[in-house]
Formats: sequence, structure tokens, C-alpha cells
Amino acid sequence: MEDVYQDDSLALHTDLYQINMTETYWEDGIHSRKAVFEMYFRTLPFGNGYGVFAGLDRVIDYIKNFKFSDSDLHYLKSEAGYSEDFIDYLRTVRFTGNIRSVVEGELVFGNEPLIRVEAPLAEAQLIETALLNIVNYQTLIATKASRIKQVVGDEVAMEFGTRRAHEMDAAIWGTRAAYIGGFNATSNVRAGKKFGIPVSGTHAHSLVQAYKDEYTAFHKYARRHKDCVFLVDTYDTLKSGVPNAIKVAKELGDKINFKGIRLDSGDLAYLSKKARKMLDDAGFVNTKIVASNDLDEYTIMNLKAQGAKIDIWGIGTKLITAFDQAALGAVYKLVSIEDENGKMVDTIKISGNPEKVSTPGLKKLYRIINLANGKSEGDYITMEDEEPQKEERLKMFHPVHTYVSKFVTNFEAKDLHQDIFVDGKQVYASPSLLEMQTYAKENLTLLWEEYTRSLNPEEYPVDLSQKCWDNKMNNINEVREKMKVSKR
Amino acid sequence: MEDVYQDDSLALHTDLYQINMTETYWEDGIHSRKAVFEMYFRTLPFGNGYGVFAGLDRVIDYIKNFKFSDSDLHYLKSEAGYSEDFIDYLRTVRFTGNIRSVVEGELVFGNEPLIRVEAPLAEAQLIETALLNIVNYQTLIATKASRIKQVVGDEVAMEFGTRRAHEMDAAIWGTRAAYIGGFNATSNVRAGKKFGIPVSGTHAHSLVQAYKDEYTAFHKYARRHKDCVFLVDTYDTLKSGVPNAIKVAKELGDKINFKGIRLDSGDLAYLSKKARKMLDDAGFVNTKIVASNDLDEYTIMNLKAQGAKIDIWGIGTKLITAFDQAALGAVYKLVSIEDENGKMVDTIKISGNPEKVSTPGLKKLYRIINLANGKSEGDYITMEDEEPQKEERLKMFHPVHTYVSKFVTNFEAKDLHQDIFVDGKQVYASPSLLEMQTYAKENLTLLWEEYTRSLNPEEYPVDLSQKCWDNKMNNINEVREKMKVSKR
Repeated sequence: MEDVYQDDSLALHTDLYQINMTETYWEDGIHSRKAVFEMYFRTLPFGNGYGVFAGLDRVIDYIKNFKFSDSDLHYLKSEAGYSEDFIDYLRTVRFTGNIRSVVEGELVFGNEPLIRVEAPLAEAQLIETALLNIVNYQTLIATKASRIKQVVGDEVAMEFGTRRAHEMDAAIWGTRAAYIGGFNATSNVRAGKKFGIPVSGTHAHSLVQAYKDEYTAFHKYARRHKDCVFLVDTYDTLKSGVPNAIKVAKELGDKINFKGIRLDSGDLAYLSKKARKMLDDAGFVNTKIVASNDLDEYTIMNLKAQGAKIDIWGIGTKLITAFDQAALGAVYKLVSIEDENGKMVDTIKISGNPEKVSTPGLKKLYRIINLANGKSEGDYITMEDEEPQKEERLKMFHPVHTYVSKFVTNFEAKDLHQDIFVDGKQVYASPSLLEMQTYAKENLTLLWEEYTRSLNPEEYPVDLSQKCWDNKMNNINEVREKMKVSKR
Repeated sequence: MEDVYQDDSLALHTDLYQINMTETYWEDGIHSRKAVFEMYFRTLPFGNGYGVFAGLDRVIDYIKNFKFSDSDLHYLKSEAGYSEDFIDYLRTVRFTGNIRSVVEGELVFGNEPLIRVEAPLAEAQLIETALLNIVNYQTLIATKASRIKQVVGDEVAMEFGTRRAHEMDAAIWGTRAAYIGGFNATSNVRAGKKFGIPVSGTHAHSLVQAYKDEYTAFHKYARRHKDCVFLVDTYDTLKSGVPNAIKVAKELGDKINFKGIRLDSGDLAYLSKKARKMLDDAGFVNTKIVASNDLDEYTIMNLKAQGAKIDIWGIGTKLITAFDQAALGAVYKLVSIEDENGKMVDTIKISGNPEKVSTPGLKKLYRIINLANGKSEGDYITMEDEEPQKEERLKMFHPVHTYVSKFVTNFEAKDLHQDIFVDGKQVYASPSLLEMQTYAKENLTLLWEEYTRSLNPEEYPVDLSQKCWDNKMNNINEVREKMKVSKR
């Protein structure tokens, strides 16, 4: 099936209802009113104590190029039945608003405004679905990668998941997110080219099968690949693979660097210990052992506990699909909108579940760092006009269980948002991927270990300022009053 | 971050080891030897009794356009360190072989050759990763969709998952796969344009919030959208949403078609029953109830058991991420290769786990349909030169537990493979998506219900011919002999 459209744009990469709503706004003449939307997730994935934000670069690219193509407009008219006058309007739509966002590699938590969009209502509405699609996946994978990398520690973590990723975009954007989360390399060559991520790989079983003989295959492979890593489990790891690898390495001597062997099946704890001994006994004490086969943070932790002799971890399926929790539930909610008099009015989404009630208004997000010990006291959400850094003593209280509170003094309030777009113009230049990775890693040292451990972490405080909390309560009461009125 | 390359090709969408192996083959002069690879998965996902194959169209597109671009080659030389002579060879590589495959919508099972690639060794090796990436995801989602659609039955199933999909490709290719599996529509407009899938959508909470008043918002929405579906849970479904929807519909009378209301949170069983009664009491007996909120086959089955009054099911996260089993484990194995004398020699991958041993040789896949009752007796894998349709009586036996056997007479042996590429030329024209969906649906009637039920289905027989089984045993013995020799 060939693509019949030569001008595929991503403007249609959205849910139909976004276009329906835009039409209503436009017809009613409110499409240009300023609106504020915030993106946030409620719950961290994997029971982890923190998230690692990723996806901003892809969001920037999408926003900059936002424009319905001719074939998009033709489709909306001829197939989706929108009227000519509305199509004429859509033809003119570009993103002209402001976006503030946390940066890639930032540690993030539940109910924090990750991305804040201030724009004409129609524009802010039309970009919702794509932004969620990008950030939900990339943040999910960066978080999973960070979690796995914490268990791997100083050893090498490699991303091997392309064949199990959810189609092609997931393979390349997923491995980029994994790199931000702390991974060291990928097997995906296209991701290496596109993003500059180190690329790594050896050979597969098919090479051994093609020569029908492991010994011959290793010899042939070594001719061009001086830095040899031999896959040793095609027939039998300990009886055939490792002995053949050692034999070839001895024969070739210093013509090659016998960098490693790779185990891809079987009992990795047992096999790695046995293989290590065989390598050491043969004098190859610097030859590394690479292991793969459905690894994740749990199996790696267990293998380490069993004393497995593994130096390099290849992680595929469980990382790239976030197998144990394959979705992050970030949402994008309207928190403020201009009224007919040009005044901003905050809005709220009520829910039977108190934790699902949105927090109204244009807000800022701060990390409160205790200057006495350099550790974070928690994150602090304020209204736009508050300046927590100017306060001497900050009261932080739990946004649901408000009796849980503390006072913080001698702190730095770090604004976690950066200006990304101002009046539709990009004003933010992304750092390198390596800088993002380093940023995430350094930020982890701000957090007490209680928040970063992989099992049953403590809940990191994300608190509302008093003003922000009062505003939320006022909005809730307003909606309640209105509902009473409408019931009469 | 902008893409610095203007000629992004998918040839680099592969694992580095494929290129390493290709280099070894090329240097050793065996890159043009004919090789046969087969793609298959071992275990069906979700505990389902069958899989629905999808992804072929995307595979065809990938194969037709396979070519390293200038920037690909530049990257391989300058960054990945491959030598000029090998790069010169890669520049010439196109796919020139044969591909036979099952078609999209075909029902497939464990250990069946889904795609069979016969091509020069290097070409067949280079395409492995991308083929797995495409087919693993699309087949996973088509299977999940079919499973969900079986529970939904004759009601409408809509795909709503873009915001939770694993990046953009997953959103559009996933919804296409869902359509093949039986879904009726999608919310993703780009997928609608690209594939011709019916697109569906109403409005979101933000519309109601933008007007700060549900009643006003519904009125405004109804002005352009004569076929109205109102989202009723922004504030309170039964106290506010449904009454407002009914009020607006009564006021507008036959100026609109009050097609439905949508529930997106809360107790869907309770709310749908109450809402149904309110609608019926108001005379809107034809107004449908749409429900969404983390639905999958289990929640739908439960809601139906509770007598929920839901007519249209919107399914997002759990479908598009295949949440309960987010990966299909298809592999791609070398089964035969030309030797130095031009003779094809079969190859095998041995494993400690008997079920993981590959089945050598160039093979065919048949479905054995009992002509007396029109039901399938199972699938039957033969060597290339066998003609099961010419046999009077077929012995079918379990490929692991060989004592489990039966004789079949009066049957049709349907060849499940089609020629897709012959000598690098595409010879297959895909049917429409709707035809693929219909094909999948009709094929389900070939299977006894014991194989298609969602909970604890019987294992559908996938058997080897005697010749195929004998060939496998011979290959196993050969490898064992060789290992004994090499240990001496």
C-alpha cells in the first residue's frame, strides 16, 4: 500500500473531537480567546518514586510545523464533511501562543504541570492529542530506563528492543528516551544516526547457522571485527559456544581484541559464572560477559543477588514496551480561559474521585531545595504571580491531606519551567542528549534515597501554595453552586 | 531538534549486528548465496486461541523502498567505522528475492511460518529487524482487537487510543490493525485519511469547561453538529450531564439528531442503566449510550453481565498498547542456505527447551478444512515439494507430543501463503482494509468455538508432515554429532 498523499502533515494526528470543538469555537467566535491548558499525569508508572520527562524536542518540531496540508483540508471537507468556511479558517491556523515546559531529563511527579500552553483556544485545543501521544510514551520509557539503570549501576545498559517496539517511531524515540534515562547505547542504527546515540551490536545466531559451524563462524566474523564479541548460545553455551570462542581468540592472539561473549538464553546466573571461570582460566580476564533475554530491573536485581558475572546488560522488550505498565496516563486540561470581557477566568474539571479534580489557573512549578543539605524538600505549585523565592518561610502542605504540612526556611525555589515558545516563536534551544542524561542523573542526587529506591519508595511531596489551594476550593464551590441552580 | 538528514531511509532501521553480519558474509564472498528465513512466533498473546496477522502492507512498502541513502552510507562510514569497499557494496543493495506470506486478516498460530524470505543471504539478513518490528506490533494489535470485538459482538467498537499509543506510528498503524481485527472506527483523523478508516468523535470536557456551563456548551455544539453526541460527565453525569443533554435535545427538537450521550468515568454499569431510563422516559429511545474509560475485553464482559446499557464501546489504552501483554515475540530464523556447491542445506537452531528448536527447511503452510462440516482440522506444515491436497488420507500429529495423532480424509488443503515478491518484484496487490476485516471475520467461522473463546481456549493443532518432522530430527542429530566431534 503506497501513501497516496505526498504532503502528509501531523496536524491531522489528532482525535476527531478536537476538530469538532474547534469548529464550535470558531462558529461561536470564541476560537481566539486566550486559553490555558496544562499537561500532567496523576500517578507515576511502575510504582516508581519519580518520573523522567522526555519528548520536548519532538513536541517543538511538531508545534513549529503545525499546519494543515492541502490534502488534510481536502480530506476534512470531502470525507469528514466540514464546511468550506471552516476549512478556510483551518487553512490559516498556525501555533501563535506561549509554551512553558519542564525540560527533558527533568524529574517529574504526579499532578505537576509538565507543559503549560497559553494560546488562542482553537490552537491550544488542536495540539492536545499529539502532545499527549509524544510525551506519554517518551516520558514512560525515560522513566523505565532510569529505573533499570539504577539497578544496573555503573555497568553498561544497552537498548536492544527495536524488534518488539510498537512500530518504528517507538523504536527510535523510545531508545532516545532510554538514553535520557541513563542508557549507554542502542542497537538501532537509525537512532544512532538520527540522534547521535552510541550504537552497539555483535552478530546473531544466523551467522553461526550460515556457516553451520560455530568455530568457522567466529573465525570469519573476527576477520573484519577486531573488537570481537561472540554470541555463544547457538548450540550449547558451555560445551560449544564458550570453548569455540576461547579457541578462536587463542588462535588469533593479538590480531583481535577478544572483548566479550554474549549469552542470550538459558540460566544466565549459572552460565555467566561458569563462562567467567572458563574465560579467566584461559587468561581472558578482561573479556566481558554481555547478557540479554527478557531482562528488566527485577531480573537484573535477582541475577546480581545470585552473583551472576555479567558486565553488560542488553535490555529489549521489557524496556521499549514498558512491559509491566505499557502506558502513562498524562492528560491535558483547560485551567483558565478568557471571558467575553477579556478577563481570564479559571476553570475546573470536577470528579467523584477527589484526586481527579483538576487544579485551576495559570500556575508555576518550583522545586524547593534546602540549602543546608542540598536536598529537595518537595515541589511547590503556585499561581503565576507568586514569588516563593522571596519568602522567608514556606508552608508546604499535602494537597489532599492538608493537615500534613511543614515549614521550610533557607531554601532555593527553582523554577522548573522554561519558556519554549513565546508568541509562536521558539525561544528555547535544546541541549545535547548527553546533557539531558547528565541533567537527569544529577537531579537524582537532589532526592533522598527514600524517594528514588525502586521498591516501595516514599511519596515525594508535591504541594500547592495556599493561594493555589484557595483558588481551587473557590472554583469547586462555584461549580457546586451552579449545579444547584441548574437543578431547580 | 530538527532532522539534519533530508534523506532519512528505513534501511538503517535495523540492529547493528545485521550490518556486522552482512559485512562478514560480503568479505567472505557468501553474501549472494541463497538463504531462506522464516518469521514465526512461538506463543499466542493474551492466552488467546488464535492470532490475526497484520503488517504486510507496511512490509511491502519497506521492501520496495529498501535502499541505503547517501547520508546512511556516510554515517556508516564516518560514525560506525565501516570501510569504503563495504560501503560501496551496501550502496548497491536492493531486495531481489522472493517473499511468500500469509495475508493480513489471516488467522495464525504458534510456530507457523508467517513470512518466508528466500533471498541472497545479505539481503535477507538486512531486512530482519524492520520486518519483526512491523509484524510483531501490528499482529499483536489485530489479535487484541479481534479478542475485544468478539466480546463486543454486534455492537460498535471504536479505537480511541492515540494519546496513549507508543508514539505516532503506533497510533496510526495500531488503529489500522484494530480495524483488520474487527473494529468499526477510530478517533484518529490521520489514520482516517491515510487508510480510509471511518472516523468518529464528539467533544471533550474542555468544551464544557470553555463555556463554564454544560447547557450552553451543548447548545453551541449542536449548532454545527446536527448528529449530536454529548459528553455528560464533566460535572455530574446524572444530576447535570444527562438532564442538560435531554433539555437541549427537547428544545432543539428535530433541528438535531440526538444520536447519543457519552459516559467517560464513574460506574459505567450503574450510570448507563440510570441514563438509559432517563433517556427513555424523555422519549429518546433511539439515543445511544457510548462508554469509554480504560475498557478492555474483561471490563466489557463484566459490564454486559451486569446489564449495562451500552451501545457503543470506545476502547483506548488497553487496545492500542496491548496493555496486558505489550509484545508479541515473533522471531526470524535461518532455515536453509546454499552451500559452496550451490546445494540448499537446511539449518537448525538448537535450544535446551525442546519447544524452542527451530524447524529446518523451505516449507509450506496449509489449513486442512474438513469438507464434511466446513471446519478446520488444524494447520499442516510441509516441506516445499509436498502436495497434501493430492493425498487421500492425511496423518496429522502433534509436533512435540507425537503420539497425539489423527487421520483426516475428505479435506481441502488450503495454501495459506501467497507470493508477495518474486525476484524482487511485487506480485501481490493488497485487498481493501474492509476486505481484510471481512476475511478475518469469515475465517473465524472455520474454527470450532473451543479454539476462539477468550478464556482457556483449546490449543488449535499446528502439525508437521512426516517428512518435515523427519527432516527436523535429522538436523538435530547432525548438530549433535558435530558437537561431539568438536569436543574431542
